[in-house]
Amino acid sequence: METLIKVDVSEVPEKQDVLHNRWHPDIPMVATVKPGDEFRIECVDWTGGQIKDDDSAMDIQVVDLSKVHYLSGPVAVEGAEPGDLLVVDILDVGVLPTSEWGFTGIFALENGGGFLDQHYPDARKACWNFSGIYANSRHIPGVEFAGIMHPGLIGCLPSQDLLDTWNKREKGLVDTDPTRVPPYATLPYADTAHMGRMKGDARDAAAAEAARTVPPREHGGNCDIKNLSKGSKVFFPVYVDGGGLSMGDIHFSQGDGEITFCGAIEMAGYLDLRVNIIKGGMAKYAVKNPIFMPSPLEPNYTSYVMFEGISVDEQGEQHFLDATIAYRQACLNAIEYMKKFGYTGEQAYAILGTAPVEGRISGIVDVPNACATLALPTEIFDFDIKPNADGPKVSIPQGIDLAKAV
Amino acid sequence: METLIKVDVSEVPEKQDVLHNRWHPDIPMVATVKPGDEFRIECVDWTGGQIKDDDSAMDIQVVDLSKVHYLSGPVAVEGAEPGDLLVVDILDVGVLPTSEWGFTGIFALENGGGFLDQHYPDARKACWNFSGIYANSRHIPGVEFAGIMHPGLIGCLPSQDLLDTWNKREKGLVDTDPTRVPPYATLPYADTAHMGRMKGDARDAAAAEAARTVPPREHGGNCDIKNLSKGSKVFFPVYVDGGGLSMGDIHFSQGDGEITFCGAIEMAGYLDLRVNIIKGGMAKYAVKNPIFMPSPLEPNYTSYVMFEGISVDEQGEQHFLDATIAYRQACLNAIEYMKKFGYTGEQAYAILGTAPVEGRISGIVDVPNACATLALPTEIFDFDIKPNADGPKVSIPQGIDLAKAV
Amino acid sequence: METLIKVDVSEVPEKQDVLHNRWHPDIPMVATVKPGDEFRIECVDWTGGQIKDDDSAMDIQVVDLSKVHYLSGPVAVEGAEPGDLLVVDILDVGVLPTSEWGFTGIFALENGGGFLDQHYPDARKACWNFSGIYANSRHIPGVEFAGIMHPGLIGCLPSQDLLDTWNKREKGLVDTDPTRVPPYATLPYADTAHMGRMKGDARDAAAAEAARTVPPREHGGNCDIKNLSKGSKVFFPVYVDGGGLSMGDIHFSQGDGEITFCGAIEMAGYLDLRVNIIKGGMAKYAVKNPIFMPSPLEPNYTSYVMFEGISVDEQGEQHFLDATIAYRQACLNAIEYMKKFGYTGEQAYAILGTAPVEGRISGIVDVPNACATLALPTEIFDFDIKPNADGPKVSIPQGIDLAKAV
Amino acid sequence: METLIKVDVSEVPEKQDVLHNRWHPDIPMVATVKPGDEFRIECVDWTGGQIKDDDSAMDIQVVDLSKVHYLSGPVAVEGAEPGDLLVVDILDVGVLPTSEWGFTGIFALENGGGFLDQHYPDARKACWNFSGIYANSRHIPGVEFAGIMHPGLIGCLPSQDLLDTWNKREKGLVDTDPTRVPPYATLPYADTAHMGRMKGDARDAAAAEAARTVPPREHGGNCDIKNLSKGSKVFFPVYVDGGGLSMGDIHFSQGDGEITFCGAIEMAGYLDLRVNIIKGGMAKYAVKNPIFMPSPLEPNYTSYVMFEGISVDEQGEQHFLDATIAYRQACLNAIEYMKKFGYTGEQAYAILGTAPVEGRISGIVDVPNACATLALPTEIFDFDIKPNADGPKVSIPQGIDLAKAV
Repeated sequence: METLIKVDVSEVPEKQDVLHNRWHPDIPMVATVKPGDEFRIECVDWTGGQIKDDDSAMDIQVVDLSKVHYLSGPVAVEGAEPGDLLVVDILDVGVLPTSEWGFTGIFALENGGGFLDQHYPDARKACWNFSGIYANSRHIPGVEFAGIMHPGLIGCLPSQDLLDTWNKREKGLVDTDPTRVPPYATLPYADTAHMGRMKGDARDAAAAEAARTVPPREHGGNCDIKNLSKGSKVFFPVYVDGGGLSMGDIHFSQGDGEITFCGAIEMAGYLDLRVNIIKGGMAKYAVKNPIFMPSPLEPNYTSYVMFEGISVDEQGEQHFLDATIAYRQACLNAIEYMKKFGYTGEQAYAILGTAPVEGRISGIVDVPNACATLALPTEIFDFDIKPNADGPKVSIPQGIDLAKAV
Repeated sequence: METLIKVDVSEVPEKQDVLHNRWHPDIPMVATVKPGDEFRIECVDWTGGQIKDDDSAMDIQVVDLSKVHYLSGPVAVEGAEPGDLLVVDILDVGVLPTSEWGFTGIFALENGGGFLDQHYPDARKACWNFSGIYANSRHIPGVEFAGIMHPGLIGCLPSQDLLDTWNKREKGLVDTDPTRVPPYATLPYADTAHMGRMKGDARDAAAAEAARTVPPREHGGNCDIKNLSKGSKVFFPVYVDGGGLSMGDIHFSQGDGEITFCGAIEMAGYLDLRVNIIKGGMAKYAVKNPIFMPSPLEPNYTSYVMFEGISVDEQGEQHFLDATIAYRQACLNAIEYMKKFGYTGEQAYAILGTAPVEGRISGIVDVPNACATLALPTEIFDFDIKPNADGPKVSIPQGIDLAKAV
Repeated sequence: METLIKVDVSEVPEKQDVLHNRWHPDIPMVATVKPGDEFRIECVDWTGGQIKDDDSAMDIQVVDLSKVHYLSGPVAVEGAEPGDLLVVDILDVGVLPTSEWGFTGIFALENGGGFLDQHYPDARKACWNFSGIYANSRHIPGVEFAGIMHPGLIGCLPSQDLLDTWNKREKGLVDTDPTRVPPYATLPYADTAHMGRMKGDARDAAAAEAARTVPPREHGGNCDIKNLSKGSKVFFPVYVDGGGLSMGDIHFSQGDGEITFCGAIEMAGYLDLRVNIIKGGMAKYAVKNPIFMPSPLEPNYTSYVMFEGISVDEQGEQHFLDATIAYRQACLNAIEYMKKFGYTGEQAYAILGTAPVEGRISGIVDVPNACATLALPTEIFDFDIKPNADGPKVSIPQGIDLAKAV
Repeated sequence: METLIKVDVSEVPEKQDVLHNRWHPDIPMVATVKPGDEFRIECVDWTGGQIKDDDSAMDIQVVDLSKVHYLSGPVAVEGAEPGDLLVVDILDVGVLPTSEWGFTGIFALENGGGFLDQHYPDARKACWNFSGIYANSRHIPGVEFAGIMHPGLIGCLPSQDLLDTWNKREKGLVDTDPTRVPPYATLPYADTAHMGRMKGDARDAAAAEAARTVPPREHGGNCDIKNLSKGSKVFFPVYVDGGGLSMGDIHFSQGDGEITFCGAIEMAGYLDLRVNIIKGGMAKYAVKNPIFMPSPLEPNYTSYVMFEGISVDEQGEQHFLDATIAYRQACLNAIEYMKKFGYTGEQAYAILGTAPVEGRISGIVDVPNACATLALPTEIFDFDIKPNADGPKVSIPQGIDLAKAV
């Protein structure tokens, strides 16, 4: 497989012009391919090397989130025009020989936050070892699982119109509570923008309006869909000539929701891709957001303990068909269950973020309660986590935990 | 299998005292079993026979939703006490020989509504034929799928404390917008309450405060989780002596979310159950909502087209990590896609509600956008619904549609 | 579902003219259907009621195998002609309310035998209880599994030419060792032939040449393929006008190979079928034996202990690429493994015959050894049967065993 | 992952002393590891580089089969003793950057042969391209599948006793027909023996009795079990101190049976392993042949066309419960079916050998016919290979075929 884009994980990302960390239609293409081509793209981890393989979460606590995500690209595909669908076969996802490890962070409430930041407000970190297809962590005993490797972030460059739409609507949301911590959204911020090969005034002007990379949007982007895994086929809307496919934020594994925010097993790595075009595909198939077909090679766990949650929040307040709150309750229920087997809350939280956990919207019409379910695979534990008449046994060595920031 | 509770689908439910349609701790047990027992419970359909197997949706339009759901029970389990977990093996779910058909309704916006009621505000109905394990409909050509049969509603009686909590919090929500159509929640309503074998003043007093059955709650209840299917094992919290297990709302099949509200393939039927008790199980396993282990016998479709949705609504407004809106967008995207193959919007909507569709919370931390995905199995269609370079072909006979209310 | 053929399990099969127990082109059709029709066929168990739900294997020891299998049919399909393919959707398989139990026999070496008859030469019986989709046995503790219900035997009537071919080649084999016990094959035997509605001289002439039902042959017949389960679609060659589809030998569950011969969970029951025709399909698709597409609803066990066997027999003799001997070694290896957990050999043998065990031809070219594998699902046991560093624990109550013939 | 054994695919294997091509207890260990260790082993392809990535099968025709298989090892595990089980986690299987391709050969009848050598007696070759997890071939259009990567050959060194047993029984078989082509078995042959680091007289003496590597035997060896794939856990009997684990014959993918003999997608590659020991495990678990637990990461194809075969051979002769002949008929039936869509027989034969085809022993007691089934996944083809009323369409470009030897 020919490597189209190479990265250097020992170099700062700002010095690598095949990377960028904002979305803008004018970011110059760094490579061009033809329909039918297969090629390899290397990627740094989403933070660009800010996080280390050690036993302190200080790096998580002080991470500069204005810099994320560092993406490889954009790649132009000959003949791709606005309105087309870019068909991307994610042929493989792999680890770089120069960076064979991963990390999961729980961001501090005041710097990043996460799905359960009201419950787990302090910075924490778990480092992961890769044993072939399996991941395990010295910070989380008793669990090992087959990875479902995928890019957390992949998509084409937006048009100027689409970019303007994003900026307007996201600013509108921020404006409803501008001092919120964490903020409702992150708006354009030129200082730390890495605009790839853009230079000078053009770079500065674009950087001032370029969209941040955290949210998933119409083009895909940071969807964090664990099922965009190796072997899947994705159909991306094209908005600019050539498409401009960029990608990064590679995950060794992730649970549905990626709930700790830095919640997958984050890593540098590579993607092997094949690209094709469906001319006029957006209109032909009424595609607004990307569609995809999952891989035949996802981990095939079938024994689960499943947790339910409804849209009544932790304070007992009733919300109307709020699937987000329902899923939060399911997550909290799963964490309390796992704690009975000896895990700390933070360990359980990190397992939900990283293991191949299924998060489902099970009922969404039974007013006023949405019902969400979370499926925890039992086969990933080296002890029996299924409920039985004898009650749970503490099966995890005590005293081991995620790394702290002190 | 011994039948513990028999129903008569040709008789009105009000005349059958093994049924009830409200939750209250004092509803008398109609049968008693021992741990380890296996038995059959028959159930009427959730509307108690209001909907007919014909080609008019008038019955859907005028359905009396103050009467639903008619449940069979409560069943007492010897030795079950508050704080225990009632372990229920759902050994089988089946069709009654006297009622071999099912229906799916799209409720009118002003009487019931549904997940997409702003888009599909009119009453519609599809009737389903059961061909063994498969379902098909004269109102929706081109699709046939293996059912994932389950009770939409099952759970134990609440304690008085829990009931009071429910009533207080749901009234609190309704009070925020008391004239909303459809209402935010349905509050106790004595007139149409069927309190089982309660009589006289006690019945009237209980009926005035008994909880409606639509929402899923701490005890489980109307969760509409398609994975509570035949072969699953469920662990229910117990709140009253004997437990008081009631159930109904049997579905031949359902997609995640049951999005048309009357959205599964609704039917009368039977459940074969085995019950056991984990003493003190709620505390032992930190169980607040039911937990369960899924069946080894769910339909095993693996080829999917998957649709993404983000929490930007149909008007382009940005919402904060709202998984409900994100899933609605994924549903709308799937419907528009299916329309390209010749389905009407209502047909596509009904397919999403009934077929074994997976609805996932894929990303829930990438502020401000939640990302939900909907997986549509391709093998259930008798034509090729996968995207390809040639574009979609209209494959559905035109002129056939769901029944209307005129 | 309309019942096309009814049986009476309390009546001897000889008195029921919708049954027959031989293959012959002239057996009269007992019902006629049209392409597209759906209908129910009831079946007696394969022995026609010779085996009882009790704790003695005397019935197994003295079973009259010249009478098996009792089949329901033949059914004519309008328009089916020789050379066509009859497309049969096995829509459902179920239990008769009048006969809710099943049995597994180990036949005595001198009356029937089985795959391991040199090791387990005595008659034994296990009776099975059906708990919804699950089967369990008072004779085999510690195991319960979801059934993979299917007809052991189904196919169309042979033409006279095909019948003659069968008789000639099977007699040829028997003639190589006519006194072997058990015999190499069972040849036509008029005395106990049940020729359906044939009468008089025609019946006698046909009975004298009608093929026995035990072997699978070109038309399908007694294939005992566990994957012809509810939800599968089978394409049968047609040899006579109308096809003449007959069936029986219903199994609640079976492992690959059905190794105890009476080895599945045998039962009376019903089949729901849908039939269609592919005109000239045999030539179009080069079909000599039936082909089929499996069901989306088979039990989805994924955790297995797998056993290997090679074509060196129990005496250490080397055989050339003999997959039969290799599979026998894999079976024997699995039995010895299971005995370490407390099972008797006969119990382990019966589990391999009945549980959803996968038997694979893994290597068939590495001269001189074939390699076969047997996959035993671990989730069907209520104890941990996986190997670990501590060694096996006896987990089965001792003193319980299959019924004997004394 | 630390690389314990490195190979050079551009060097002849005879010059690499970490390789050997015979089994003998005295082959010196080339590396030592501890229980719990994880490490990488590189392997050359099974022929040691005799086959080239070109469009002539001359190399297949003249291949020197006295040299195969070249294995990496043996590896000693500290503390392993005869009677133990060596627990090997196959953590990963991968491609070497220096050799990113694979091949499938049909051996000539007079030099190697194969399962269908009477039907396809001439040498042929297909070369395979690896597109990430997928394989495709310029010689076989229309098909692409996810690989199920595994070592075809892995096991521990035999004891002298075991070696003597092998030699005696295999010679016994050859002696029954010493001039057969191909021979019944390949006996020790010192000339081309590569005995690793053995030297001088000791080498010569050992080479004269060292077992050839083709057959699977008690220790495992060349089992060609496709399910020993990345992520599986294997329990190997130990016969000599240290165990002496050797391996090779890496396959990118293979169908059950590996029917063309050189029938998988053969490649050089690496294995990542983790080893542990169960002391006295052979007796504890009654292990004679290796046992294993399959991976959670095998390709999850579920739509199949399945073919049946019975133990009546191509000449119409009846055989007694011969699963080998039954599987051969199933293979031949599948090939004839595929030819209707435009494949040549050789292409179809090669697909059965390489794609994730399931080969099952379905019925093994219904005297005199064994029944085997072959499951061909439909999703691997880029056209619809399922049967339907319209009949098959030729979907494969004509004129393309496997490479020939001329």
